[in-house]
Amino acid sequence: MPAERAMRHGQPGLVVWFTGLSGAGKTTLAMAVERRLFDAGHRTFLIDGDLLRAGLCSDLGFSAVHRQENVRRAAVVSGLMADAGLICLTALISPFRADRLRARRLFPTEGFLEVFVNAPLAVCEKRDVKGLYRRARANEIPEFTGISSAYEPPESPEVEVRTDLLTVEASAAVILDAVQKRLNSLSMATNLKTGKMSGQLKVES
Amino acid sequence: MPAERAMRHGQPGLVVWFTGLSGAGKTTLAMAVERRLFDAGHRTFLIDGDLLRAGLCSDLGFSAVHRQENVRRAAVVSGLMADAGLICLTALISPFRADRLRARRLFPTEGFLEVFVNAPLAVCEKRDVKGLYRRARANEIPEFTGISSAYEPPESPEVEVRTDLLTVEASAAVILDAVQKRLNSLSMATNLKTGKMSGQLKVES
Repeated sequence: MPAERAMRHGQPGLVVWFTGLSGAGKTTLAMAVERRLFDAGHRTFLIDGDLLRAGLCSDLGFSAVHRQENVRRAAVVSGLMADAGLICLTALISPFRADRLRARRLFPTEGFLEVFVNAPLAVCEKRDVKGLYRRARANEIPEFTGISSAYEPPESPEVEVRTDLLTVEASAAVILDAVQKRLNSLSMATNLKTGKMSGQLKVES
Repeated sequence: MPAERAMRHGQPGLVVWFTGLSGAGKTTLAMAVERRLFDAGHRTFLIDGDLLRAGLCSDLGFSAVHRQENVRRAAVVSGLMADAGLICLTALISPFRADRLRARRLFPTEGFLEVFVNAPLAVCEKRDVKGLYRRARANEIPEFTGISSAYEPPESPEVEVRTDLLTVEASAAVILDAVQKRLNSLSMATNLKTGKMSGQLKVES
């Protein structure tokens, strides 16, 4: 059924995983990329930390163990979305390398695309869109990533964008290009497997 | 974006929730209904207890508290699928009335359709497809629904099928009819809201 669902949608399922500090621009970029994919005819879904914390992960805090569980659930649900044939954009601080690796391992090699949304801590802290850094510095939030809890940058993400140097549009374009290439590669693999002529399940660009 | 996603899929998002004893036929019926909806052109997803227990809820046991959390997560994820514009068929024993009510309350009135897959315990136990009843009677499985833990039947489910009296095909047809009516009603409501002419977002039957 998963293969049939993807065929119905005319695209392979895929998880695009945005990791980075709070304020680096993960959700903003995920939204920008979703919009462009959607407008190009794709079937998409977006999951971010706030959405998870408000629902599925409302029972979790911010300890290392709870962050690990938060990432695990996000990865499993993203995988269900991909099984449903959707392109799932998942934006989550996901600060620990081991947790992200565990997430990646749930997927076939090409089914998971890691995007490192990179901006220096000082820049994120200056942006402080949600006022969280200020509260973290005032010790009102314990275990805040970048301040009182570590962020372990990805060692080999598929994409890295420096959001302190690039505009949202430019960053989104870089990510979109990588997503598009991956979709094409996945579609070709699917076509080979199902014996369909290449291009029949072609992804619009 | 949820409204746009549903428009893209040409159908409203919907959760069809199958509740009943182990062996009553929930997953079988959910699969049969998914197949018919899918073949009619719909975008669907299926979640069942085994899928959840193997992934998202692998950390949970079968105590009342864990069952409550299991149902909660299933409901939240089903809601995400509906937000993604899909028809989500969720098959879960979900034995407690309060938990199912809590699930229902996550959705707009028409967004949740409860199907009571009803077969007498004796029939389910005789079927014993997974050999679980035998193990429960031998005290190898604690808190097994129907044996050592209660099943509280729905008081006013949208649909009830007696799977000891009807064939899978007949039961699926009854459910499909209710789903179709709900989809039509939801589509009409959406059309009214978006000012579209009735029928523009018409659901294929």
